Amino acid sequence: MNSVPELPVLDRVILAHGGGGELMARLIRRHLLGPLRNDALAALTDGAVLPPIDGELVFTTDSYVVTPIEFPGGDIGRLAVAGTVNDLAVMGATPLALSLGLILEEGLPLATLDRIVATIARTAAEAGVHVVTGDTKVIEHRATGGLPASSGSARPAHEGLGVPPLADGQMFINTAGVGRRRPGLRLGVDRVTPGDVVLVNGTLADHGLAVLSVRAGIAFESPLRSDAAPLAGLIGRVLDAGVDVKFMRDATRGGLAGVLCDVSEGAGVTIEVEERRLPVTPTARHAAELLGLDPLTVANEGKCVFVVAHQHADQALRVLRDHPLGREASRIGEVTAAQPPLVELLTPAGGRRVVQRPYGEDLPRIC
Amino acid sequence: MNSVPELPVLDRVILAHGGGGELMARLIRRHLLGPLRNDALAALTDGAVLPPIDGELVFTTDSYVVTPIEFPGGDIGRLAVAGTVNDLAVMGATPLALSLGLILEEGLPLATLDRIVATIARTAAEAGVHVVTGDTKVIEHRATGGLPASSGSARPAHEGLGVPPLADGQMFINTAGVGRRRPGLRLGVDRVTPGDVVLVNGTLADHGLAVLSVRAGIAFESPLRSDAAPLAGLIGRVLDAGVDVKFMRDATRGGLAGVLCDVSEGAGVTIEVEERRLPVTPTARHAAELLGLDPLTVANEGKCVFVVAHQHADQALRVLRDHPLGREASRIGEVTAAQPPLVELLTPAGGRRVVQRPYGEDLPRIC
Repeated sequence: MNSVPELPVLDRVILAHGGGGELMARLIRRHLLGPLRNDALAALTDGAVLPPIDGELVFTTDSYVVTPIEFPGGDIGRLAVAGTVNDLAVMGATPLALSLGLILEEGLPLATLDRIVATIARTAAEAGVHVVTGDTKVIEHRATGGLPASSGSARPAHEGLGVPPLADGQMFINTAGVGRRRPGLRLGVDRVTPGDVVLVNGTLADHGLAVLSVRAGIAFESPLRSDAAPLAGLIGRVLDAGVDVKFMRDATRGGLAGVLCDVSEGAGVTIEVEERRLPVTPTARHAAELLGLDPLTVANEGKCVFVVAHQHADQALRVLRDHPLGREASRIGEVTAAQPPLVELLTPAGGRRVVQRPYGEDLPRIC
Repeated sequence: MNSVPELPVLDRVILAHGGGGELMARLIRRHLLGPLRNDALAALTDGAVLPPIDGELVFTTDSYVVTPIEFPGGDIGRLAVAGTVNDLAVMGATPLALSLGLILEEGLPLATLDRIVATIARTAAEAGVHVVTGDTKVIEHRATGGLPASSGSARPAHEGLGVPPLADGQMFINTAGVGRRRPGLRLGVDRVTPGDVVLVNGTLADHGLAVLSVRAGIAFESPLRSDAAPLAGLIGRVLDAGVDVKFMRDATRGGLAGVLCDVSEGAGVTIEVEERRLPVTPTARHAAELLGLDPLTVANEGKCVFVVAHQHADQALRVLRDHPLGREASRIGEVTAAQPPLVELLTPAGGRRVVQRPYGEDLPRIC
């Protein structure tokens, strides 16, 4: 055996954890392989070998930079698994395997890392998928570090929704995913036609508002919790039921508005959304008002927009509501041939408002 | 069409580029889709659909946090493509598709982004692989930002090899990769036995020393350039030639020493390395001395360690030297049954030195 220098007991990530040496090997063994254990990952080779896959593959990637890394209803680990699983699912794929790229900031408490890795393992199990390959890098602490979290922000007041001063080290996560595409499925905005119905599987804006409320230090009477959840099971149910889904997309950055504008532009159709049918909790509505945000443009992490054939809309809604992640599913609108193509909100008072894609909301690090 | 606010002309990445709105769509269209163009990526869906793959898959991921992001001989983009291609190749896979996860720091000049994306496209073409799916996030500038690069470091002198003060925004890249495993190949440390021969395809330590020299502000008479290169073609030639490769790994973090210690520990064998056969350029040797580093533990990004059956060693060396990336390939050592298992360096004077895996070298952000 190669002789090993005595290793200190550490409670935080240090730069040497990223050096490719003994300390890194220990970090991986103790803090990653245990909770995530599976045969492919345990081999610790340069990649994972997956058994042959019958049919087309779907391959996707997403990085997660949310701050704070733990928030009501979830953490960056749940987000990273759910987000990539959802990207596979909305492409009509059954998720098979995830990769996990961790960028750890010096100073990250190992106890925090352990909690987040545990969430990753739990969320992956919930989604029926394994983390089969990974990589870990360590970066030096940002120069804002060392400030206690309670010391207040040096940023000007109008940046109150920005990033609070860092105390402990943070982390970024990239997850890529591989899935098997369901055979015979054809999804795309090119299939969307007037008469189609738009559904969503539950309440809007919870993720973004939960994160922003924490950053702004606002507490509400009712809990405001992120909706981050892997939707592969829910989407699988809808497809298994034979619903003619023409297009689906999870409404993350850009919110519901972003997805609907994509559909409207891509298909050259108008989408009429009934405001009274938009599922938004009173707490979320209140939070959005307080923060000056439109719930339609705020990020969700467990919500999917479905455009389905008119004659399948009722069935789709039933299937969604039968699933724990779709209890508050709603039929929110309809595709029309009106020109020019717009996304229009029909207000309860009978008014119409054009819904625009956000320009580039100044809400960094929401996912 | 949804009406679009007038967009300002920007020369740098701003937070709103990451917001999922119009500005982000423009960033992706203008700065990413053009240079990387291919059908899968152009669809701009939540993932890429890949045609069915015959046989086993290999799936891998790596994040890249090197600083500076541009250095002699390469940049973070070349590193990100080469590193992931190499991870697939050393697993015996032919690279098929890459994902690209960009984390851009506010303040990154768009001209820099353009150069790096161009390198990504060029290196992917060199490796015969496409970037088929991607994701872009923007994070706020580190608080050290805004300092001109020439203003000197506020860090203590003993951290001279650390990270210089940031001026323009930086970036992190994650690439994941999917490849098709060559059928019938069996690779692994469990196959390594006494008598096997250890080869490397060229000079050692060039990547790490090139990056560190830039950080330390040291110039040398001869150019010191990163060796970052995709090795899939070179490795393919060796396998095509029928060489019985038992194990191969690219010698990145931890350097040659890290790989050899893995083999020694994993196979329970001793590896004797002849120091005079280690290909290290005079410039690299001089740089390592000046920086107080051992070239054996410094990261490479275009070097692969091959353990091959004894009777195939000469053929393997010929095939390697026939390839532009293997001109300076060398047979560096041999596997023996000596116990306890060690990695030993045989010096020209006839001495022996035990080569240890680095503990956790304090050289952050080298790859």
